Amino acid sequence: MEDQGREQATPEVQDRIRASFERQGLMAHLGARLSHIGSGQVHIVLPARPEVTQQHGYFHAGATSAIADSAGGYAAFTLFPENTSVLTVEYKVNLLAPAEGEHLEAVGKVLRSGRTLTVCQLEVFGVQGTQRSLVAAGQQTLICIEARAEQ
Amino acid sequence: MEDQGREQATPEVQDRIRASFERQGLMAHLGARLSHIGSGQVHIVLPARPEVTQQHGYFHAGATSAIADSAGGYAAFTLFPENTSVLTVEYKVNLLAPAEGEHLEAVGKVLRSGRTLTVCQLEVFGVQGTQRSLVAAGQQTLICIEARAEQ
Amino acid sequence: MEDQGREQATPEVQDRIRASFERQGLMAHLGARLSHIGSGQVHIVLPARPEVTQQHGYFHAGATSAIADSAGGYAAFTLFPENTSVLTVEYKVNLLAPAEGEHLEAVGKVLRSGRTLTVCQLEVFGVQGTQRSLVAAGQQTLICIEARAEQ
Amino acid sequence: MEDQGREQATPEVQDRIRASFERQGLMAHLGARLSHIGSGQVHIVLPARPEVTQQHGYFHAGATSAIADSAGGYAAFTLFPENTSVLTVEYKVNLLAPAEGEHLEAVGKVLRSGRTLTVCQLEVFGVQGTQRSLVAAGQQTLICIEARAEQ
Repeated sequence: MEDQGREQATPEVQDRIRASFERQGLMAHLGARLSHIGSGQVHIVLPARPEVTQQHGYFHAGATSAIADSAGGYAAFTLFPENTSVLTVEYKVNLLAPAEGEHLEAVGKVLRSGRTLTVCQLEVFGVQGTQRSLVAAGQQTLICIEARAEQ
Repeated sequence: MEDQGREQATPEVQDRIRASFERQGLMAHLGARLSHIGSGQVHIVLPARPEVTQQHGYFHAGATSAIADSAGGYAAFTLFPENTSVLTVEYKVNLLAPAEGEHLEAVGKVLRSGRTLTVCQLEVFGVQGTQRSLVAAGQQTLICIEARAEQ
Repeated sequence: MEDQGREQATPEVQDRIRASFERQGLMAHLGARLSHIGSGQVHIVLPARPEVTQQHGYFHAGATSAIADSAGGYAAFTLFPENTSVLTVEYKVNLLAPAEGEHLEAVGKVLRSGRTLTVCQLEVFGVQGTQRSLVAAGQQTLICIEARAEQ
Repeated sequence: MEDQGREQATPEVQDRIRASFERQGLMAHLGARLSHIGSGQVHIVLPARPEVTQQHGYFHAGATSAIADSAGGYAAFTLFPENTSVLTVEYKVNLLAPAEGEHLEAVGKVLRSGRTLTVCQLEVFGVQGTQRSLVAAGQQTLICIEARAEQ
């Protein structure tokens, strides 16, 4: 899955993901953006700023988790058939180190893709210049449901 | 723990929690506020608005989790000794139903309080008028560390 | 759910649960037995013996989790329609204290019951005489699938 | 960590792990054995037999989790200083596919090693002849505590 995920998804899939991402008010409000849409693998970047911090000035676990959750959700969504939607069933995340850096990069990768349920691996890296260190890791379960009108 | 948690914590503890909460840039940015500080139990409210939504207009799992994580962290913190800090080690959350309503209320409750580690139960309710329904449930592990200068 | 779960399930449901439990080779091998079958709530007891220990002589986390997983699975199963099966999608458990006592009692309770997915709360108590203390707590996701011939 | 983990740990570390494993009554009772002890990576094998099954004849999630938990615990323990013990704080596991095969192999790998807490990645494979497929994946938090007399 990893090698496959490094390549760009088809333009149709990319459009579908971008359209959905743009409807997520929270991602825009946090300042997050999609940085890679591969087949079964999606990356989301979140630049550092005071609006996403916890009490010690690091990225808040809630912000770290929010981009991890969206990255995993969209990674799953790249493999779903047309006219379906994705919902997060649950996820678990370990905060491994203080989340700091110029930006965070969340990487969601499909670990197993089923007809109903998909399981993703979640990783979040703190990036400072050329340095990149793992700050959070998790696992997520998603469900594929019949499409709903998305307005 | 439940009955105890319904009562207000001491003014000193409340001040400590409020001071820390106000340093969390993310909570202000999302529009979240503390609604109850009991001993081992903290509630956080998040009003509905477009800035906290996912692609279908419901509260984003990241926003739901962010207030759950903070509620649990502060619930643990109410029981910590002076000159300590709280960090989330990990948490797991199930999104049980579409998170909707006028506002969400996250309830963090200490399940077990140890010298080093504390475990909290996390619940998030969607509130519409007098209706209150459980939209997310989780469990969280926190660590007590020696205080750091908090600016 | 709690009050409802204290009462015995219908004889048909109890028979269905017992028949399935008896097919779980692991439960017999560990020495576990069903101690309560309520509607949406199932209890399983595991007596202490050297065959279920970890390196310090306490109950092994794997034994603790095994009965918690089965208790939650059967709690979900009590609410499933005829001709369906239950599978664990995932679970998370915190080991809160050394698991000791004459026996452990696992309590699985349905937190939310959906058509496809069910979420259960898991608790395990160490019981010594009249003393009963919480040694593990968790949360579990289960899926309802069409029945398979169970032989 | 992965490459490093493939190599055998020092004889001293291997002895320490084997001695602890042999005190785990549950592992012997299930029929599990250590198949690899690397630095930060431990494998445990569990042969198929009726004593470890669930109601459909597959490996029980409790058995799958038990060897995953022990593999992760010992992976962490290989990196701990002398005169310490390891305890599982919590873990989460997704059951990705029916667990079947001649045997299961659980692989525990240290993801992050801290002074107090260690986080491990857990994987369990079903092995049939030369085929090896991922049946479970999880994540685990462990704590390093001062040694206790282990007898």
